[in-house]
Amino acid sequence: MMEHRFVRQNANEAMDTTELRVSADDLRGLATKILRSVGTSQADATVVANSLVRANLLGHDSHGVRRLTGYVEEARAGRIDPTAGPKAETTRPGTVVVHGRRAFGQVAAEHAVRELRQVVAAQGSGVAAIRECNHVGRLGEYVGTLAEHDLVALAFGNADPTVAPYGGRERRLGTNPLAWAVPRGTGSPPVVMDWATSGVAEGKLAVARGRGEQVASGLLLDADGRVSTEPADFYGGGALLPFGGHKGYGLSVLIEVVGGLLSATGIGSLPGYTGGFGTVLVAFDIRAFTSAEDFREQTELFCRELAHTGPAEGHREVLVPGELEERVRLERGRNGIPISEDTWHELHALLPPKEEREP
Amino acid sequence: MMEHRFVRQNANEAMDTTELRVSADDLRGLATKILRSVGTSQADATVVANSLVRANLLGHDSHGVRRLTGYVEEARAGRIDPTAGPKAETTRPGTVVVHGRRAFGQVAAEHAVRELRQVVAAQGSGVAAIRECNHVGRLGEYVGTLAEHDLVALAFGNADPTVAPYGGRERRLGTNPLAWAVPRGTGSPPVVMDWATSGVAEGKLAVARGRGEQVASGLLLDADGRVSTEPADFYGGGALLPFGGHKGYGLSVLIEVVGGLLSATGIGSLPGYTGGFGTVLVAFDIRAFTSAEDFREQTELFCRELAHTGPAEGHREVLVPGELEERVRLERGRNGIPISEDTWHELHALLPPKEEREP
Repeated sequence: MMEHRFVRQNANEAMDTTELRVSADDLRGLATKILRSVGTSQADATVVANSLVRANLLGHDSHGVRRLTGYVEEARAGRIDPTAGPKAETTRPGTVVVHGRRAFGQVAAEHAVRELRQVVAAQGSGVAAIRECNHVGRLGEYVGTLAEHDLVALAFGNADPTVAPYGGRERRLGTNPLAWAVPRGTGSPPVVMDWATSGVAEGKLAVARGRGEQVASGLLLDADGRVSTEPADFYGGGALLPFGGHKGYGLSVLIEVVGGLLSATGIGSLPGYTGGFGTVLVAFDIRAFTSAEDFREQTELFCRELAHTGPAEGHREVLVPGELEERVRLERGRNGIPISEDTWHELHALLPPKEEREP
Repeated sequence: MMEHRFVRQNANEAMDTTELRVSADDLRGLATKILRSVGTSQADATVVANSLVRANLLGHDSHGVRRLTGYVEEARAGRIDPTAGPKAETTRPGTVVVHGRRAFGQVAAEHAVRELRQVVAAQGSGVAAIRECNHVGRLGEYVGTLAEHDLVALAFGNADPTVAPYGGRERRLGTNPLAWAVPRGTGSPPVVMDWATSGVAEGKLAVARGRGEQVASGLLLDADGRVSTEPADFYGGGALLPFGGHKGYGLSVLIEVVGGLLSATGIGSLPGYTGGFGTVLVAFDIRAFTSAEDFREQTELFCRELAHTGPAEGHREVLVPGELEERVRLERGRNGIPISEDTWHELHALLPPKEEREP
């Protein structure tokens, strides 16, 4: 077991942050305990804990264990039902509706992945939409799993409106993420693309605000529709901006409509929106078109060629989608996952009194 | 019939351009004649001519009739076979491979749309990949047609390498377009998103170069990997850049791999690439998840809400994906399609001597 060490970081900066390095196993254990304490079965608690800690391992701390505070709150308020079991309904040979029944989003999404694999095994292609779906964590996790079975997999979803349309000032769209994965050569993790269609994720803005930092221009508007670099302006009635101008905006509109309506979650800024995450997964079998071995081999060669591209001015290297995450995973696997002292205390405060443990 | 009028434009600019306004009918007639003259059947010539003129009508002149010069050249060189008929092979219940057999790309893509509709009618979802595929024109056309039948439709494809990976300087990726469409309310054309994953299409760069104009920063690199605003630097061994930084780059990598390998076209920058356009279409039936009427109605409401969003500073209005094209279509439907004198002469020069007609 990795020793829990508090490390004082940024000693020369205005704000001290104290950081602990926790092993993935320990963090999974803590997360499982917290989830069990709100009535989650051991099996489902393991699914959710694994998913959250995997996000931490890959460096996506905004989608990691710090989400447990919100999850526990939602479970206590009845918006998450930790005891619910998702049910699948195959509506056509190539389509499946997964009724999440307010289970943890990760549990519903894992169920959808299993169902979708069966549909694609039989038909060569398939689509799954999840209803009554809570926060699923990283979409990249689910497309990555599907890609490991020689499938091309896409996933997207809508969420509460925080993003202005291109040219506009009001919140109309969610951060509406898109993920896409394919397998690489044996021994390499899949190529995984996974990002929000907003220029910045709200979680990162919250971090910048906490630190009193500005963000780059082009990421948000203030309440008067002016470009701002001040995170507080978003929380003061402003809006996030889509990435990539009208292109990212277009993608977000399509995700809003398809994710929202096929999942029966609704469009975030229209009446009838039920809240939650309108998640859709699409997969198709590489072997219906070509040899999976050839596909993997060519993709591997291409990834290596990309990585060997000479850098442009101002850059040091070219990364393949998913490669940065893989590097962080190796480092955090060795040295543990950095958890701030605040988060550590917050997580322990979620445990019932008899379970509270602090280092 | 609309009168052909040459209009002298930009009289105060360094370069005079003389412009004709031609009706869509006349332009289709001319395009059909040109296509017939290289041995294309009346039916196929109509498909290709309609597709090209529709691109002109929507304002995408880079994908319009000016492509005929290249098409005729490729037909004469044997890279396009104007007499070939595409064949479909249903490899799994939900997947189809369309053998384009070097027919015009539009003919192959229209065949793929028909086949995909049948697959989706039976299975609820489906995927089509086109082999031996020439330039298909606007991907938006095919997803728009599928959307008119109450399907969610995506299309993407790879092409010759002209784009550098994010952080790199060498050409490794095609301009790899992505299109996505869904139906709107009755009477409204579908919501259609259709763009290159490069910051700028090569065709627009060629136009800027011809006019001696600079382009915005962030669109291209010179041969030494430095950001440039000079279109000539691209043609001098530079590279286009992906839109939206690492996000657009990730999307382009996935399109390159999936479009290239599932179509057997290959990855543009690897040995074995056959040239051409590795095109993949994905569609699924809205009615497998919700009522098509509800979907259309909600999408229509959302589009109207988007259009009524208050503008951000520096903007006048918010457009829905596909709305700009619709406006241009209405204007060009009334006033004719602007064709430069040069293009007009070029097109007539493609006709066999006895067919040559000039105004």
